[in-house]
Parts: sequence; structure tokens; C-alpha cells
Amino acid sequence: DALTQGQFDTVYNFLSLVIAAQLFTALFLTFGLSRILPRYRLAITVAIVVCGIAAYHYFRIFDSFKAAFVSDSVGGVDGYTAAVGESFNEGYRYVDWLLTVPLLLLELIAILALARKVQSGLIVRLMVAAGLMIILGYPGEISGDNGVRGLFGLLSTIPFAYILFVLFRQLSKSLATQPVSVRGTLSRLRWLLLLSWGVYPIAYLLPLLNIAGSDAWVAKQVGYSVADIVAKAIYALIIFYVARMKSYDDD
Amino acid sequence: DALTQGQFDTVYNFLSLVIAAQLFTALFLTFGLSRILPRYRLAITVAIVVCGIAAYHYFRIFDSFKAAFVSDSVGGVDGYTAAVGESFNEGYRYVDWLLTVPLLLLELIAILALARKVQSGLIVRLMVAAGLMIILGYPGEISGDNGVRGLFGLLSTIPFAYILFVLFRQLSKSLATQPVSVRGTLSRLRWLLLLSWGVYPIAYLLPLLNIAGSDAWVAKQVGYSVADIVAKAIYALIIFYVARMKSYDDD
Ligand SMILES: CC1=C(/C=C/C(C)=C/C=C/C(C)=C/C=O)C(C)(C)CCC1
Ligand SMILES: CC1=C(/C=C/C(C)=C/C=C/C(C)=C/C=O)C(C)(C)CCC1
Repeated sequence: DALTQGQFDTVYNFLSLVIAAQLFTALFLTFGLSRILPRYRLAITVAIVVCGIAAYHYFRIFDSFKAAFVSDSVGGVDGYTAAVGESFNEGYRYVDWLLTVPLLLLELIAILALARKVQSGLIVRLMVAAGLMIILGYPGEISGDNGVRGLFGLLSTIPFAYILFVLFRQLSKSLATQPVSVRGTLSRLRWLLLLSWGVYPIAYLLPLLNIAGSDAWVAKQVGYSVADIVAKAIYALIIFYVARMKSYDDD
Repeated sequence: DALTQGQFDTVYNFLSLVIAAQLFTALFLTFGLSRILPRYRLAITVAIVVCGIAAYHYFRIFDSFKAAFVSDSVGGVDGYTAAVGESFNEGYRYVDWLLTVPLLLLELIAILALARKVQSGLIVRLMVAAGLMIILGYPGEISGDNGVRGLFGLLSTIPFAYILFVLFRQLSKSLATQPVSVRGTLSRLRWLLLLSWGVYPIAYLLPLLNIAGSDAWVAKQVGYSVADIVAKAIYALIIFYVARMKSYDDD
């Protein structure tokens, strides 16, 4: 619970970067919405909502961080320590994920435009798994005990593995039925998903490694922040590109 | 880390000027968007997003500046000193550039409407170079050491030179294929780019000159601010003019 000035500034700037990235991705998508055919607009609308929710939570996380660490040196040069009567609320991330992860899954399924029957079954199963994954991860995240962290991390990994497996199989299966113009993009999207979602459990596990306390914590914040940009904003821009291409093809 | 009242007010007013310039350029472009043909709207949408991102960061920079310098004299007449527990976060500029410089390049390439294959190659190469330029500049900017500042400034200048070279050549090459009505404007835009982007490394280097500490710092803030207005807002208005002319010609 002590941060050097460099560590403090790093977390501070990454949190602000995420706010800007989410907010202006949402804005960009809002301007672009009218250029998408109505049948693909659900995916983009959901993407706008996801980036908006993330921006909201990052405003909160940013303020929580600023309140939770204070310095008593001029310009903060001697570093920051945990404040009296304030704590950094990691819970915002889990509230955010509880809302956005199911929506991210919906976004993907909506853009694939699968047969209606396949769709609804998939959505239900994936959303339940996503909810379980986040809810099981939370007690481990807020616990100071490494055993508890490890145990709930493990439990949370079961629905996580299930989601990735189902997504990867569905995406691969649907490739053949997608327009040629977006096949390459959707194929690469599988890997983007795997890589960006994979960052979360790794960042979660950092405090378990034997890195000096605050380095692991800073790396975790940076990891979650970068992953949130890739998994929400960059992902949304790719979905937008696919929607544009499909709109163009169908026209 | 001590500013006279005049220095404080100068920075203060320039920061506020940038907020107003970016915010209302974004607003103006938003109103104008519907007068642009769909094929040129991407460029204008990106310009809106760029000015919005800049406005966001200047709000933050402004608040950071106000919190970081305090005065204990009535009306601040005896000047300002660095505050306890707060520092002026120069990092916001780099976070801003990390997002906006690639987008400014995209804006230009989108308005030129080059052949699709030329475009995507250009975009990738320029964006990678832009990312490198900003990331390499950052460690030098936050370092108090002039040697470190010089070294990273030099490294950052390599991708910078590459970007300017590629942009200048592409712009010059594409002039022949552009409608006559915008050829003069695009030709002058080359110089605006060169001049405004050139201000950044100069402002960066000011602390290396033997100017009294806070004068160099104030000049740096003013330099970055003016350059941000020219390179984002004025640039956006020129792009808008080109888009209007092209829309008119194509119609
Ligand atoms: C496996 C696992 C986790 C996975 C989290 C994931 C995969 C979160 C994904 C979030 C996304 C995609 C956010 C939106 O942008 C937790 C909860 C950290 C706990 C440890 C085990
Ligand atoms: C060469 C160089 C730099 C160049 C910065 C530039 C060229 C920034 C451009 C910013 C723009 C265009 C902002 C948007 O409006 C740094 C990073 C200061 C570090 C020193 C060397």
C-alpha cells in the first residue's frame, strides 16, 4: 500500500487512457450507427452501451484511486501511501464485467447473424457461464489471502474455459457461412478474443507470484486496463468494421 | 517549480483556450457532418473524435495544473509554488497523443481517398511509427535528467522523421489525382503539417536550453498548447473544407 511517484503516475495515466478510449469509441460508433444496415445495428448499439458502461466505471475507478492514495511531499516526489478512511475499490471492475461480459458475447452473436434457434440457446448458456465466472472470481479478488485467491480463481476458470471453448468452436463453425469479405477478419477476431480475455486471469494471478507487493499490484491494474481497451474498444471497432462490410455486401 | 503570477496566468489561459478551441471545433464539425457525402464522413467523424479526446485531456490538464500550483498570497500576487501531495501530470499529453496522432493520420488518409490497397499499407506503417514516436518520447519527458531527455528525444525523432517523410511524399504524389478545387489547399496542408508537428520536438527540447527553469517550462506548455490547436482543430477545419469541396465536385 505504498506507491512510488512513478508507480502512481503509471496507474493514473492508464486509468485515464481507458476513460478516453471507451468514451470516444462510444462516440465514434454513435456517429457511425446510421451507416450500418438496421439488421446489424443491435450489435453496434450493444457495443456503444458496453463502452459507455466501461467509461462510467473507469471514471469511478479513477476517482477512487485518487482518493485512496495520498502524498505528503511537494509534487508527490516521495511517493504515495494509502489514505486514511478511503480504500481503492476493486469491486468496480467486477460490477463492470458483470454487465459488460454478457453484452460482449451478445455483440458477437448478433454480428454473426446465426440461425435464430442456434442463437438463443447460445446466448443463454454463454451468459450464465459469464455471470458465474465473474461472481466466482470476486471473493478471491477482494480477499487478502492467497489461498482464497487461488481457490476462487480456479473455480472461476471452469466457466471461463467453457466460454472460450464454445466461442471458439462457434466462430470457427460459422466462418464458412460468413461473407468472404469478412472471413479473414472474423478468423483473426478469434485470436484477439483468446488473447485479450486471457489477460484477465493472468493479471488476477500476479499478486500470487513472488513479485514485490506494489509492483504486482501496479502490473495488475495496467493489465486489466489494457485488456479492457482491447476487449471492449478495439473489439467494438472490429465489430463495426464487420458490420460495415456486411451492410455493404447485403446492399 | 515556482511560477510568477504572470507565468501562472499565461499557462492557465492557454490551457483554457485549447479546451474552447477543441470542444467547439468538435461541435461545429458535428453540425456540419450531414453536409458531407457519406464517403468522406469517416474523415470528419475521426476529426470530431480527435478534438473530443483533446478537449477531455485538456480539462484534465487544466485541473491538474490548478491543483499542482498553489499560492499563499492574497490574489496570488506573490506567485505560485508546487503544492504538497499533487503534481502536474505531463503524462496526459502523451496519453492524448497516443490516441490522437494515429487518428490524425487516419483522417488525412481517409480524406485523400487513395486506392484501397495503398491505403491500408500506409495506415499500418504510419500508425506503428506514431505509436513508437510517442512511447519513446515519454520516458524523456518525465525524466528530470537532461541526458535522458536528450537520448529519448533522439530515439523518438527517428519514427518522427519517417512519418513526416512518408506523409510529405504521399501528399505530394496524390496531388495530381485530387480534384483541382482542393489541390492548392492540400498542397498548403503539407506545410501546415510540417510546421505544426515540428513545434512538438522544439517545445520538448526547451528545458535543455539554458533558459531559466520556469521560463522554459512555461514556453513548453504554451508551445504544446498552440501546436495542439493547429494540429487538431485548424487541421480539422481544413479537412472539413476539403471534404465539402470534394462532396460538391462528386455530386
Ligand atoms: C478466469 C478468471 C477470471 C476471468 C475474467 C475475465 C475473463 C474477464 C473478462 C472481462 C472482460 C472481457 C471484460 C470486458 O471488457 C477472473 C474473474 C479475473 C478471476 C480469475 C479467473
Ligand atoms: C519528435 C519528438 C516528439 C514528437 C512529438 C510529436 C510530433 C507529437 C505530435 C503530436 C500531435 C500532432 C498531436 C496532435 O495534435 C516528442 C514525443 C515530443 C519527443 C521528442 C521527439
